[in-house]
Amino acid sequence: MIQGIPGAPGIAIGRALTLARSAPASTSAAKPETVAADDVERELRRVDEAFRGTKRKLQRLKEDTERRLGGKEADIFAAHLAILSDPELEEEIRRAVSERSLVAEAAVDAAVGLLADEFAAMDDPYMSERAADFRDIGRSLLEQLAGAEDGASPFAGLAEDGIVVAGELTPSDTAQLPPLVRGFVTEAGGATSHAAIMARSLGLPAVVGARNAVAGIRGGETIVVDGFAGRVIVDPTPEELAAYERKRAEWQAAVDADRAQAGEAAVTLDGRRIALGANIGGAAETAGALANGAEEIGLFRTEFMYMNRTESPDEEEQTRQYEAVFRAMEDRPVVLRTLDVGGDKELPYLNLPAEPNPFLGWRAIRLCLDRPDLFDTQLRAMLRAGAGGDLRILFPMVSTVSELRQAKAAVDRAAARLREEGRAVPERWETGVMIEIPSAALLADVLAAEADFFSIGTNDLTQYTLAVDRMNDRISALYDSYHPAVLRLIRHVVESAHAKGKRVGVCGEMAGDPTAVPLLVGLGVDELSMNAPAIPAVRRIVRGLRYAEAAALADEALRQDDGGQVRKLLAARA
Amino acid sequence: MIQGIPGAPGIAIGRALTLARSAPASTSAAKPETVAADDVERELRRVDEAFRGTKRKLQRLKEDTERRLGGKEADIFAAHLAILSDPELEEEIRRAVSERSLVAEAAVDAAVGLLADEFAAMDDPYMSERAADFRDIGRSLLEQLAGAEDGASPFAGLAEDGIVVAGELTPSDTAQLPPLVRGFVTEAGGATSHAAIMARSLGLPAVVGARNAVAGIRGGETIVVDGFAGRVIVDPTPEELAAYERKRAEWQAAVDADRAQAGEAAVTLDGRRIALGANIGGAAETAGALANGAEEIGLFRTEFMYMNRTESPDEEEQTRQYEAVFRAMEDRPVVLRTLDVGGDKELPYLNLPAEPNPFLGWRAIRLCLDRPDLFDTQLRAMLRAGAGGDLRILFPMVSTVSELRQAKAAVDRAAARLREEGRAVPERWETGVMIEIPSAALLADVLAAEADFFSIGTNDLTQYTLAVDRMNDRISALYDSYHPAVLRLIRHVVESAHAKGKRVGVCGEMAGDPTAVPLLVGLGVDELSMNAPAIPAVRRIVRGLRYAEAAALADEALRQDDGGQVRKLLAARA
Repeated sequence: MIQGIPGAPGIAIGRALTLARSAPASTSAAKPETVAADDVERELRRVDEAFRGTKRKLQRLKEDTERRLGGKEADIFAAHLAILSDPELEEEIRRAVSERSLVAEAAVDAAVGLLADEFAAMDDPYMSERAADFRDIGRSLLEQLAGAEDGASPFAGLAEDGIVVAGELTPSDTAQLPPLVRGFVTEAGGATSHAAIMARSLGLPAVVGARNAVAGIRGGETIVVDGFAGRVIVDPTPEELAAYERKRAEWQAAVDADRAQAGEAAVTLDGRRIALGANIGGAAETAGALANGAEEIGLFRTEFMYMNRTESPDEEEQTRQYEAVFRAMEDRPVVLRTLDVGGDKELPYLNLPAEPNPFLGWRAIRLCLDRPDLFDTQLRAMLRAGAGGDLRILFPMVSTVSELRQAKAAVDRAAARLREEGRAVPERWETGVMIEIPSAALLADVLAAEADFFSIGTNDLTQYTLAVDRMNDRISALYDSYHPAVLRLIRHVVESAHAKGKRVGVCGEMAGDPTAVPLLVGLGVDELSMNAPAIPAVRRIVRGLRYAEAAALADEALRQDDGGQVRKLLAARA
Repeated sequence: MIQGIPGAPGIAIGRALTLARSAPASTSAAKPETVAADDVERELRRVDEAFRGTKRKLQRLKEDTERRLGGKEADIFAAHLAILSDPELEEEIRRAVSERSLVAEAAVDAAVGLLADEFAAMDDPYMSERAADFRDIGRSLLEQLAGAEDGASPFAGLAEDGIVVAGELTPSDTAQLPPLVRGFVTEAGGATSHAAIMARSLGLPAVVGARNAVAGIRGGETIVVDGFAGRVIVDPTPEELAAYERKRAEWQAAVDADRAQAGEAAVTLDGRRIALGANIGGAAETAGALANGAEEIGLFRTEFMYMNRTESPDEEEQTRQYEAVFRAMEDRPVVLRTLDVGGDKELPYLNLPAEPNPFLGWRAIRLCLDRPDLFDTQLRAMLRAGAGGDLRILFPMVSTVSELRQAKAAVDRAAARLREEGRAVPERWETGVMIEIPSAALLADVLAAEADFFSIGTNDLTQYTLAVDRMNDRISALYDSYHPAVLRLIRHVVESAHAKGKRVGVCGEMAGDPTAVPLLVGLGVDELSMNAPAIPAVRRIVRGLRYAEAAALADEALRQDDGGQVRKLLAARA
């Protein structure tokens, strides 16, 4: 038995898939080698290529993770990309090549070691933890130099069905976990480590901080992961196995029971109905949405269609994608969000300028209104695809009413042109505003007069309301969607919308967070849209609530001093 | 006579100081030269040093400008620093050295020319304007390579008293304008160009867009700058000279009349008193504050004491600085803001991490609470210096009440220790909160129970409320302190504070903006603090207002849809 820390709840039983690579690979293993003066140029080129390749790979992992699990899980890749883009590391490596004539590998090793040691030696725990980031990046650079293919997985060659046991799972590793993995065990990490957060997002049982797990577990051996108790049972006795099989079955039954209610409406005990939608990143995800009982597509993040390619998808390609969504969802509502890129979500072919504060920069609707070619193509595709369906177009990053007016006018113009061309467009469609900037929330009364619906993006709304970059670990303790300032804005949005007979949804991470559901329902939100796997549990929670009680709870939450108090209040009433 | 565009109001008469350098210096003037393979290393080192030197120089210009004129005027240097820190330019130059064996100067020339041309060719006017930034940076790099001293001024060798005539005045130029310059004329630029904005901030008459001014005006010749009509009279006739002398005298008399009221209180016609304070960056600026009739130091930006040095000022040095302020201001209130660095305001010796979104990062009170050594030293110095005075300590970037509590506890601890050591501390002092983050404004009722006063930083509050980086030109049209969302927050802050008997000041740029004064007074603000030169005009405006009318105006402003409407309303009532 190995005692660790509960990483993610659940019980998994299966063969151990031991990751050959031991704990954090030391970059100092490579032997220093030097080259002749004539070859310095070649080595510098190799460094350059390794940086490019690593950036490409991280960008891809970031996008994949964002699509599968959402922005928070993808943040680590953005942080690594930022380190790679900071000239300090590359300069240090280049200097090691040009001044000491080191081969690229040895130069990476030396520079990464130097910087990682510098950070590790800092008193400040935040800074010393950055050493691990440098080492992870160093490893990626060495892989690139070794000619690793962009898509090479650390799991290649392992059986797919089993429980991963590793010294450490880096973000790049977890992003590439094979689909049949049942759970995982790591030596490194605490309950809030990346591996633990990832496991919870994936619904996989996990134990982290399990010391000597790699040495103590042979590949192929049967193990039990008890994610509730943070325990790993190695080579269990028949009695142990039977006991854990029962526990596993109970846990699975509870999960299944939630899923079985997929056909039921999410109605509170006192009769208030909440629409449950799915957030998707592509037409293929409609299957999961329907399987989990989504009543609508509450958010199609169309930006994923634009990523990992060399030019924008054209009108025909976009139309086909949107049509596939409408077809799958039949008569159900489909909310298509217009292109939300810029800032940290880069599309190389758009040649967007680097910005000192991308989260406060030229992105989303700001960019679309400045690039009518891009915007019109997308709007035409949406209108064409939605001709027979319940089309709802959602504009991201609106900060002022004139942006909504301009965007609506662009839709009207696109529709008029399509009609002139003899193409079918919907008789009616809705246009909505993402409420994710404080000014939009504060002026919801003005916007409600001209929008058909609102969708609150709690992630960005929290970020701007508290002025905390949600990707910045240094200040993550301040990032808090339960802060009463955020809740007051949500309340104001709901009241303003309802006064004009308009609906309000929430599509940020809060919508799928079981703790937040009573609060959001109590604040009067009409719809919750989330990653499909979260829907069954949210449905169960809504069906167990009384709206009147939730509303009283929300009123009390609004009177709290800070997010911590709100959370305590919710825990006390849970 | 040369007709240009009005750059800044006023009349100046004097000798022409023609800047030898003609219009935008073409970087392609340097002759390409190559070096032997052995010398490539040396040239790469020179490139490296030129980058470092240029960064140092821009950093210094940024800080000087920030101190003299405020953040908005300093933004351009931040933008140039960002371009310098982006690896693209440096890599392009290094490649030109290492692949083509160019000397550093020729490499800068080639790379800057290439990038500037690339940008200039873009259809997008914003991007094509960036070409000028590249050329300005290229010029600075060449100056560094030529061994220019960090402090070398483009005005060296010119008489100091006169009117500067130049093809173009770069931000670096205007930051170094000699103090006796009376006005300026440039060939380049429009009414919203950097040169025009700078002239208005400095109170200097200016004509911009004056074609052929450099060729048409000889150095030493007498010229008249009519900043009202955008006209330059070269070698005026005695009659012209007499007429313009009269105009100049009238203008000066109006400016002087405002200054002469320095001793009068800023009281509206119906008796509401508004306290007028000065924002300062160092003890020396108290003289200007008093000369302009400041009734208090409304904001001492202590971060300037920490800049341009290799370590933090110690307790004794800080104490002496603060004491000098209290001594100069006698019994008047002095608001000392605790260290507001981090993010874009870097102190190299603090080893702050680079952040992807510095404006949403680890800065100000967030950093101080994490670095008790730094914070305690400052608080001790403030308490010691304030022992005999009216000490008010202001905490920047508070987003939640627990930060205020922690900061107040740190002050109390510092005071207790000073008393134990037998040192004098004030019997009473006040602690206040900068309201610059939306959550602080939204929870002003909670904060008002524990703070003695509020100071609204309209610049940052606007930036976060609208999610618009105020340094990002690309989206500058969206940055609008008159946006009703910002005004609603200000109103909520005032009401919350007054309900608890607390005062509210405004210390952002709005406080010194004549257009905004009636609005802020009408919203119920008690104090306005600004750069000292703006005080006389603001006093005159307050003394001409009726509070009741201003309040009605503010109510109407709050009901507008957007900032443009608010501005129209203010213009109609002016």
